Amino acid sequence: MTPSFDHLVKQLKKLPGLGFRSAERIALHVLVEQPDQMSGLVQALDSASKRVKRCVRCGNLSEEELCGICEDSRRDESVLCVVEQVPDLLAIESSGSFRGLYHVLHGKLSPIKGIGPDKLNLESLEKRLNEGKHSEVVLALGNDIEGEATCYYIMDTLIGESPIKVSRIGFGLPSGGGILYADQITLKSAMDGRRSYHR
Amino acid sequence: MTPSFDHLVKQLKKLPGLGFRSAERIALHVLVEQPDQMSGLVQALDSASKRVKRCVRCGNLSEEELCGICEDSRRDESVLCVVEQVPDLLAIESSGSFRGLYHVLHGKLSPIKGIGPDKLNLESLEKRLNEGKHSEVVLALGNDIEGEATCYYIMDTLIGESPIKVSRIGFGLPSGGGILYADQITLKSAMDGRRSYHR
Repeated sequence: MTPSFDHLVKQLKKLPGLGFRSAERIALHVLVEQPDQMSGLVQALDSASKRVKRCVRCGNLSEEELCGICEDSRRDESVLCVVEQVPDLLAIESSGSFRGLYHVLHGKLSPIKGIGPDKLNLESLEKRLNEGKHSEVVLALGNDIEGEATCYYIMDTLIGESPIKVSRIGFGLPSGGGILYADQITLKSAMDGRRSYHR
Repeated sequence: MTPSFDHLVKQLKKLPGLGFRSAERIALHVLVEQPDQMSGLVQALDSASKRVKRCVRCGNLSEEELCGICEDSRRDESVLCVVEQVPDLLAIESSGSFRGLYHVLHGKLSPIKGIGPDKLNLESLEKRLNEGKHSEVVLALGNDIEGEATCYYIMDTLIGESPIKVSRIGFGLPSGGGILYADQITLKSAMDGRRSYHR
């Protein structure tokens, strides 16, 4: 089209979930259809990139030293939920199934990708665990190889002999999913994780 | 989440094709996962919004006075294709089915939405038609009520008694679509637009 237009489409295409068509559609939208939205968008990107940083305690997004969850005195600080990424935290929050505090690792161990313990937010997790405020840790990491390795590292190196109760989130059939459609690993997790029927 | 983050998600949600989930995913991407892409994106938006304007002749996007298509001497300037929006032009271009010049109206007539002839890029169309360079006009506008009204206006007011040959793009069954799945209006267009079978 034009050099700046093509460059914009190329930049937009890098965003997750956008292909060439949707990137082109968005570029046309902000340039032709709704140019008045452009400055608002640029400002919002700019100000978010300047203001949003990591909570120094848990690694969640925050504009202050501590994030809204760490600051919230109504949360149960005895339980700590360890997640890989901020989106995982958001998903658990929106399910309303957890009222404790979080710790975001910002990745998982992967020797193949060269991600060792020093690349993850683990030092501050160790510090938090040593403070003795948290009596329970829920490891909400995936059950792929890297998730398993990360859980093992946390158990072995950070928890060690400490009396902290550690659990992993349950794996099994997703709600609404039939046995017919589940893959082998999910079925194995569901079998391994079976619970006695209360009657 | 945080005020700047929520504001960014709100701005992103205004873009076409993005819902809350995809906007949130993009915001997390540029803030947490790939913060190095942020400045490139902001710059691309900013520079495109400053540089990209309308071709003074045809209304297509351009960074110069005239767009690449108007400047291209290999195009057949005897045929003019009138489209509603820039995306329509892009779609026809990528089909490779047209080698003439374009004229982008940037909308269609709609008394209900208060869009009269003065709101569209019609004045320059009239000027181009009066120049006498174009012997054929293809109206590539939709066959909804507003598209029909716009075609009628162009025929009645701009073409009038002039000897210019005017046609509308064909309507009918989309390629690969079965008769079974076509809606009534499409089937009617396909019947009305039937062509004699050459053998």
